[in-house]
Amino acid sequence: MREKAEWICLEQSVELPDEVLDSKIRQDIVGKIRDVAQIQEQIWKVEIQFPIDNVGTEVSQFLNVLYGNISLVDGIKVVDLEWEKLTEIFPGPAFGISGVREQIGEKNRPLSCTALKPMGFSPGKLGRLCFEFARGGLDIIKDDHGLANQSYAEFEDRVKACVLAVKRAFEETGNRARYYPNITADGGSIERYRRAYEMGADGVLFSPHLVGLDQLALLRKDPTPLPIMAHPSFSGSLVVSRSHGFSHDFLYGSLWRALGADFVIYPNVGGRFNFTAEQCEAINTAARTSDSPFKPCFPTPGGGVEAAQVHEWKKRYGVDTVFLIGGSLYKNEAGVFTAAKEFRQALES
Amino acid sequence: MREKAEWICLEQSVELPDEVLDSKIRQDIVGKIRDVAQIQEQIWKVEIQFPIDNVGTEVSQFLNVLYGNISLVDGIKVVDLEWEKLTEIFPGPAFGISGVREQIGEKNRPLSCTALKPMGFSPGKLGRLCFEFARGGLDIIKDDHGLANQSYAEFEDRVKACVLAVKRAFEETGNRARYYPNITADGGSIERYRRAYEMGADGVLFSPHLVGLDQLALLRKDPTPLPIMAHPSFSGSLVVSRSHGFSHDFLYGSLWRALGADFVIYPNVGGRFNFTAEQCEAINTAARTSDSPFKPCFPTPGGGVEAAQVHEWKKRYGVDTVFLIGGSLYKNEAGVFTAAKEFRQALES
Repeated sequence: MREKAEWICLEQSVELPDEVLDSKIRQDIVGKIRDVAQIQEQIWKVEIQFPIDNVGTEVSQFLNVLYGNISLVDGIKVVDLEWEKLTEIFPGPAFGISGVREQIGEKNRPLSCTALKPMGFSPGKLGRLCFEFARGGLDIIKDDHGLANQSYAEFEDRVKACVLAVKRAFEETGNRARYYPNITADGGSIERYRRAYEMGADGVLFSPHLVGLDQLALLRKDPTPLPIMAHPSFSGSLVVSRSHGFSHDFLYGSLWRALGADFVIYPNVGGRFNFTAEQCEAINTAARTSDSPFKPCFPTPGGGVEAAQVHEWKKRYGVDTVFLIGGSLYKNEAGVFTAAKEFRQALES
Repeated sequence: MREKAEWICLEQSVELPDEVLDSKIRQDIVGKIRDVAQIQEQIWKVEIQFPIDNVGTEVSQFLNVLYGNISLVDGIKVVDLEWEKLTEIFPGPAFGISGVREQIGEKNRPLSCTALKPMGFSPGKLGRLCFEFARGGLDIIKDDHGLANQSYAEFEDRVKACVLAVKRAFEETGNRARYYPNITADGGSIERYRRAYEMGADGVLFSPHLVGLDQLALLRKDPTPLPIMAHPSFSGSLVVSRSHGFSHDFLYGSLWRALGADFVIYPNVGGRFNFTAEQCEAINTAARTSDSPFKPCFPTPGGGVEAAQVHEWKKRYGVDTVFLIGGSLYKNEAGVFTAAKEFRQALES
């Protein structure tokens, strides 16, 4: 195992055999093993330290050092990292739990969230759905992550319709929902991020793995003052294997938080995906722990939650949680307005 | 299995249960199963067709439809795609094998390539290495993918030193090597791509998985006339599992070629990683097949090849191959100049 760890130290830095290195490079550049300990049968925990200068100031080179070439072999899983020396690269959330609560004006209860869908609907139809959800009292209404810039509901038309819907619902009912359009776009998403703000959106949905994790940090560092909700689309390859990739809490809790996500969406236990209760709890902990240089962010479990069970989940996950319920609201035979109202009531109970 | 395929059709389009859909959405938007066939014990091949309008015109939304949410479960592997209708999004290589051969002026033999390393070396030291490799007669000298913009060898200083080294070697020996700096950078890499051209580089190295696959297509669509060599750093999670992700040939052969890579680097069988001979051959085939709307691109097996064995590999992989040899040249006790010369001679034999 020590031999394997030594290989990682070389592969993730100089990428040369030890025998060709001069002593200065070996001393200053190659990773150093801090600890090797067997923790279970067939599983060892290895701590390696890399010089901060190997990373420089970019997220892309950070990923290269952390898991570039070694991603190409099975048997190495990243579970933790010391963030303290990386705060130049990683900004952490701009808003975080407290900033989002301030924006929404709710201090003491979990927040409700749903998704506008399906793709194929016109901006008018999405706007009407948005109006019903807002009228019903939901806190956050986000685009489904599949709403991009397709011809049936282009970004600008969709945002316009939904911002207006939220405004009308507020005027009619006093319920002030927040609308978060999906800004994920080729070439980074800064342009749609800024445009969303100009058009009156309250936050944004963003899928960092579709366009690069560096883009999440770049959005965060942009002065546009909108919270960012990160979606796990295309991220699963990093977590589905027990012997490869990143642990669930490291990826969705620690890393996304470090990059600047104010909300981290993950598929809740019991839904259509296979995250375990333990993995979900670990994500919640990593997103909220005070043992981090970054502001805490909102765990946002999606799927696997029915409005009727929200009270139970609230006890289990705590008040600093955003519950994302999609499909089960659409299935409610009383319609989405009633479904939204029941969801809101369940949260307040 | 048909039920699972139906779930994929819904999950990767409307992301709603079938019962809440109206008939128009079901007809026009939801994916359609074309075929389900058992091909081995426990393995089925499923063909699904998605409406092209669900994808729109962006690589990010293409990935979302192809493998967004389903990346979060184990048991689904993408092995093939019909590219014919996707040529608006996917440009294919600008140069390809024939364009690169024209640039280099070699029509009938495999090409040689090495990497400048390690990180930690100054631009002066990297330039001297580059000079020796160029003098020895190598075709392409690329940066190691770990050379980003670290303080010990910043991008501009490094490119300047290596472009000059290649020029001097040409003047002294008549050997004209091509220098490909690593342009991978946060926020896409267009700026370094253009700068590399202005400074006299001959091509570029780029790691698409560190910054997003969309960025590869964007580089390709930029008018900067430099071939792009794609590196697999951080891509491994998509291929290491037998039951998850993309097949090796689909990712490195088909998809990278479609996005615009002129060279696809992959770790050769027998080296430090575990790609099989069969997987490597399949990548070569996918990169070069004429059964594609895109120009063929150069398979670039790296690692696991010693200069002395190049003659064997040439017979096995064919002349339209670029052999990337790094570590074994550095280990040659006669020095890198002699090592490069022997490599070049082995290719020409």
